[in-house]
Amino acid sequence: MTEKKDIFFITGNTHKFAEVLDLFKQANLSYDLKQLDLKPIEIQADSIAKVALYKLESMKDQVIGSYFVEDAGLFVDYPLKGFPGVYSSYVFKTIGNEGILQLIKDFKNSIAHFSSCIALYHDSSDKSLVFTGRVDGKISPKIKGTHGFGYDPIFIPNERPKKTFGELSKKEKNKISHRGRALTKLIEFIKYE
Amino acid sequence: MTEKKDIFFITGNTHKFAEVLDLFKQANLSYDLKQLDLKPIEIQADSIAKVALYKLESMKDQVIGSYFVEDAGLFVDYPLKGFPGVYSSYVFKTIGNEGILQLIKDFKNSIAHFSSCIALYHDSSDKSLVFTGRVDGKISPKIKGTHGFGYDPIFIPNERPKKTFGELSKKEKNKISHRGRALTKLIEFIKYE
Repeated sequence: MTEKKDIFFITGNTHKFAEVLDLFKQANLSYDLKQLDLKPIEIQADSIAKVALYKLESMKDQVIGSYFVEDAGLFVDYPLKGFPGVYSSYVFKTIGNEGILQLIKDFKNSIAHFSSCIALYHDSSDKSLVFTGRVDGKISPKIKGTHGFGYDPIFIPNERPKKTFGELSKKEKNKISHRGRALTKLIEFIKYE
Repeated sequence: MTEKKDIFFITGNTHKFAEVLDLFKQANLSYDLKQLDLKPIEIQADSIAKVALYKLESMKDQVIGSYFVEDAGLFVDYPLKGFPGVYSSYVFKTIGNEGILQLIKDFKNSIAHFSSCIALYHDSSDKSLVFTGRVDGKISPKIKGTHGFGYDPIFIPNERPKKTFGELSKKEKNKISHRGRALTKLIEFIKYE
């Protein structure tokens, strides 16, 4: 058996790390996942992929070996024209789930999706790669569930139309979530090393 | 009389340029103000000063001579914990003034302020300088007025408690506005050259 290499997930979000670790453990990889809480530069851009790639580049001198960053956003396509989108994290810290519910409460329906973008610096090939994932759904009229984090208690995925992400276990959420889907692509890429 | 030098205001916002030009014309400066619509890199940061300074630095190779950038934000300190703040421009494009009013409509009072930060690259001294301005007020329960731009029709400054910025002329707004105040400081700085 060959020795395992380290791969670093640059994040300060312990919830995200726990989700990613769960999927890593299920795959039988030649990598050990480590958390690295650095503060990358985040730009204001119109897509999470741009934000993630810029972040990745800004870290190049600070990490040895392969590493990745992840950016995600909740996009309320109707009626909020994609808000909070790229700025989901900031919006969550200020107006929170209550704010989103207040903004949509006079509307009967909503259309929403979560997007995740993982940007990986792959050391052995010296390449930067992007893996994306998406889950479609709608906004729950009420905050429901205690699992997950962020907007999870107000997002109802189309695949489980009676539950919010906040009501799903980590394993159930990972199967259908934006982040789970992006990470599954990353795992496929590094699987056979 | 000495020949006038150019000074560039990097902005794609014609409303902002018009306001700044108005104040420049009133001062008798040895500079001619020119608009330059470049796309600087905007970072996600916790203060508009950081965003403005980063923007300024990102332009250094693209501009010859003195130039400045301006960043502004509306901060609804109560009840929205400073939202939309640093991301005012993005929030305006998605949920707009209607969104802000919807978020505060169950509250009797609000406390808000506009902040402006001008970052200047001063060619003759090879220095980067920051000038800030602020105006305190509250949010109007209704959209009022057709002057100005952005959040102007919902912001009531304490100095003119019966009118929104949208109901003031450019000259009246410039006297008390965040941007006018920041710019007055910049003008003081370059006045005696």
